[in-house]
Amino acid sequence: MVRKPIYDFDLLATDGRARAGLLKTVHGEVPTPVFMPVGTQATVKAVSPRDLEDLGATIILSNTYHLYLRPGDERIARLGGLHAFMGWDRPILTDSGGYQVFSLAQRRTIDNDGVTFRSHIDGSRHRFTPEKVIAIQENLGADIITCLDECAPPLDYDYNLQALERTHAWAARCKAAKSRPDQALFGIVQGGVFLDLRERSARFLTDLGFDGYAIGGLSVGETKEQMHAVLELLDTLLPADQPRYLMGVGTPEDLVECVARGVDMFDCVLPTRMGRNGSALTRTGRLNLRNARFADDPAPIEEGCTCYTCAHFSRAYLRHLVVANEILGLHLITLHNLHLMLTIARELREAILQGRFEDYRAAFWERRRAAQGER
Amino acid sequence: MVRKPIYDFDLLATDGRARAGLLKTVHGEVPTPVFMPVGTQATVKAVSPRDLEDLGATIILSNTYHLYLRPGDERIARLGGLHAFMGWDRPILTDSGGYQVFSLAQRRTIDNDGVTFRSHIDGSRHRFTPEKVIAIQENLGADIITCLDECAPPLDYDYNLQALERTHAWAARCKAAKSRPDQALFGIVQGGVFLDLRERSARFLTDLGFDGYAIGGLSVGETKEQMHAVLELLDTLLPADQPRYLMGVGTPEDLVECVARGVDMFDCVLPTRMGRNGSALTRTGRLNLRNARFADDPAPIEEGCTCYTCAHFSRAYLRHLVVANEILGLHLITLHNLHLMLTIARELREAILQGRFEDYRAAFWERRRAAQGER
Repeated sequence: MVRKPIYDFDLLATDGRARAGLLKTVHGEVPTPVFMPVGTQATVKAVSPRDLEDLGATIILSNTYHLYLRPGDERIARLGGLHAFMGWDRPILTDSGGYQVFSLAQRRTIDNDGVTFRSHIDGSRHRFTPEKVIAIQENLGADIITCLDECAPPLDYDYNLQALERTHAWAARCKAAKSRPDQALFGIVQGGVFLDLRERSARFLTDLGFDGYAIGGLSVGETKEQMHAVLELLDTLLPADQPRYLMGVGTPEDLVECVARGVDMFDCVLPTRMGRNGSALTRTGRLNLRNARFADDPAPIEEGCTCYTCAHFSRAYLRHLVVANEILGLHLITLHNLHLMLTIARELREAILQGRFEDYRAAFWERRRAAQGER
Repeated sequence: MVRKPIYDFDLLATDGRARAGLLKTVHGEVPTPVFMPVGTQATVKAVSPRDLEDLGATIILSNTYHLYLRPGDERIARLGGLHAFMGWDRPILTDSGGYQVFSLAQRRTIDNDGVTFRSHIDGSRHRFTPEKVIAIQENLGADIITCLDECAPPLDYDYNLQALERTHAWAARCKAAKSRPDQALFGIVQGGVFLDLRERSARFLTDLGFDGYAIGGLSVGETKEQMHAVLELLDTLLPADQPRYLMGVGTPEDLVECVARGVDMFDCVLPTRMGRNGSALTRTGRLNLRNARFADDPAPIEEGCTCYTCAHFSRAYLRHLVVANEILGLHLITLHNLHLMLTIARELREAILQGRFEDYRAAFWERRRAAQGER
């Protein structure tokens, strides 16, 4: 089979540091800024591919570590690749599994060649090297794949310095190992909250040259100010004509503030995880729908929201479903939360294209302040 | 508010004892034979109202006992009734709660006036009388409501004889208590497997006169032959121009064989419960999708099935979801199982209208025999 080697990124407009672009992949186009729902185990939890299409999701993220362990990347390849396997024919990005493996703490040992770890499912022993992680991601067949990196605690300078050496060596090996022309490869900038390390990482990776740049190791313990300082620095160092992806972030407010600092792509488990916990995201905060104060509340989660959940169901009904442990409750709240994140990303894009990003940002924060005043 | 007092049943065709009809209610028409998905707690488990509409469900069942306890029938009434509360504007039938209360065994005491029981949720004390059960169902506002009955073990003659007295007295009180003109009331024929008791029950209830007749106390321990004998008797006793609803039944094969004996309406938790256990119903049997033999199986649950699940997902993917405890797996298998039951009911109706019911029935069983030969 001849594969079309298509990958491109057009930066369509900037408004201050905020950027609106169009990412092109074999499986379709992704307007940016974009929020990517997380489909860890080859499913975005509690929603179907047709739900995601209805919501207007243009790209999802899936997870190399989890799919390698279960059901196995070779099995997925035999079944036609990840798109066919999970019934999603739009773009997919796979992370490298680095974050998950390093989260295993006592269950993994790192050396300069790679990392050996025990499965969280059955304790079996496995090894990831840069070459192995690329081979797995080539079996999965996502449109965008990522380098193996070492994700260090963001506030530990010496650890970050040491981890950066490995992350950079592994990035070079990942680039060399990559063989599929239909997949784009993103490098991952590390360096914690330390601007000298972040600069070093950005320079090393951009010299090496990738199709886009992920920003790793943030939103894991540092302050918002520290995160923003890193983004502001990287905005000056990363190539303007390539996408920047902030890994594992975020909330509605993170989207607004990180787009303001030049980020194009986001992923986060928050909207789906909160949905399964019975918590709804709104433009102004969060609602814990288990709360008894919603038992007789005929209002939707958020007035004016156009999602299926808000158009058809009251807080009282959603509370009933959550309290009665009904799967439908988790599904409906997840739908709403994803709809909100995807809608905010689309609104940010429109605002940038129309040169009114700062107005949008100011209105976003004004609405939150007003709502907090009411409470 | 003026409510339209609309309820009717047209018997459109018969083919042998099999019947095709059209039930008319305030919330719409229900072609029969019909399978009613079960929405115990104001949701058909793991699917949304729009899923049910897509599947072509025309009526669902919900549960008086469960909704009375949680979130409370008065709360549902304040929120606009059950249709508005759960976002389902097609017909609903509520059972009377009798079956659930009598299932509580050690937690309930029966007297001639009613039954006192303790909640399975918090142990709190409650009392159902015929009048109370009608009042609850009037608060809920289903299109079809049912009488409080005593559901006895089907093989115990003395118990059934005694329970029948109460069931009949309660049916008269339910009929007298009913006040909403927009709701139809079904009597419930009891009497276990005993044809003399069933005859007595059918004569008593039809003399009293109801809008339709439920057949209770079956599929709970008796043989298929015993169940069929009861249905064949009742077919001669129940009015031809009113619907017959066999409670808590059944499987694909039950639908075929009970329609063959004059039943119009069915409900059963089987397709939804099996879906949540990772088991798929097919025209020829069942598939336990946890089974390792499906790990690499690219086929859909059932070849030729037009449901969303079979059109998009392999057994291998469904197995992965079930093994990985992903909610999407339960959702997709539930969709398939409901689709099959609803499709078989529609096919039965078409066959009856075209006078080829016996051909359909023979082909159904031939296909099962052939599939068993293959295994």
